[in-house]
Amino acid sequence: MSGPARGPEPGTSRAPTQGEGELLSSLSFDASGLIPAIVQDVEDGTVLMLAWMDLEAVRRTLTTGRTWFWSRSRKEYWCKGETSGDRQWVRSVSYDCDGDVLLVRVVQEGRGACHTGMRSCFYRELDVVSVEPDR
Amino acid sequence: MSGPARGPEPGTSRAPTQGEGELLSSLSFDASGLIPAIVQDVEDGTVLMLAWMDLEAVRRTLTTGRTWFWSRSRKEYWCKGETSGDRQWVRSVSYDCDGDVLLVRVVQEGRGACHTGMRSCFYRELDVVSVEPDR
Repeated sequence: MSGPARGPEPGTSRAPTQGEGELLSSLSFDASGLIPAIVQDVEDGTVLMLAWMDLEAVRRTLTTGRTWFWSRSRKEYWCKGETSGDRQWVRSVSYDCDGDVLLVRVVQEGRGACHTGMRSCFYRELDVVSVEPDR
Repeated sequence: MSGPARGPEPGTSRAPTQGEGELLSSLSFDASGLIPAIVQDVEDGTVLMLAWMDLEAVRRTLTTGRTWFWSRSRKEYWCKGETSGDRQWVRSVSYDCDGDVLLVRVVQEGRGACHTGMRSCFYRELDVVSVEPDR
């Protein structure tokens, strides 16, 4: 399995396709060729998870309407829910002002987004001092 | 200005304080000592922005009830809205199943979270194929 796609790799002659070129001009990938993708439930606004995409995972997400990520630990592409059935159906993909974060709004199928069985991966809290706005 | 705090730095003898030790056991910082923090409007669920925290920024956020980040470009701490007035008042801080992403729910003051004047940093969209769930 090859590493994350970063456009044409050094030593190769392949130029980015037109679609890839447009993505590369809008998005900024990190030194590892990755961009964080926040996944949000389009129906109730719950932040479900964050995972990482490379250019190819972004391209697959945009063209298939399912969420594709690059697993940094397994070093392979994965399509969310392909084995668990907890699939995500993409409704929109936004990018932030710096072009270095994606926000993917989805219809979440099945139990939820987390491999633990929880609907959201963010099911644990830290203690925080809460201060009233001094408006 | 020193770099991001990663607990005791190699070559220093300072042990983590009790609070830092608890954070370090719950959270997983990347090779640069950073963790991505998604900021969400607690009132309407809008995902406002993503920025990066090191251990010290997490500690400041938890103890002051304001959002603190580590700027990777300026290499300094910043407290959101301290100069713009677009302050964020923290209502909860969650961490994900892998302990390597934070979700900070806030009351957003002022115009919004984005330096462009937009309420959310995610104001631009990519074209995506939308597929109906085959339920």
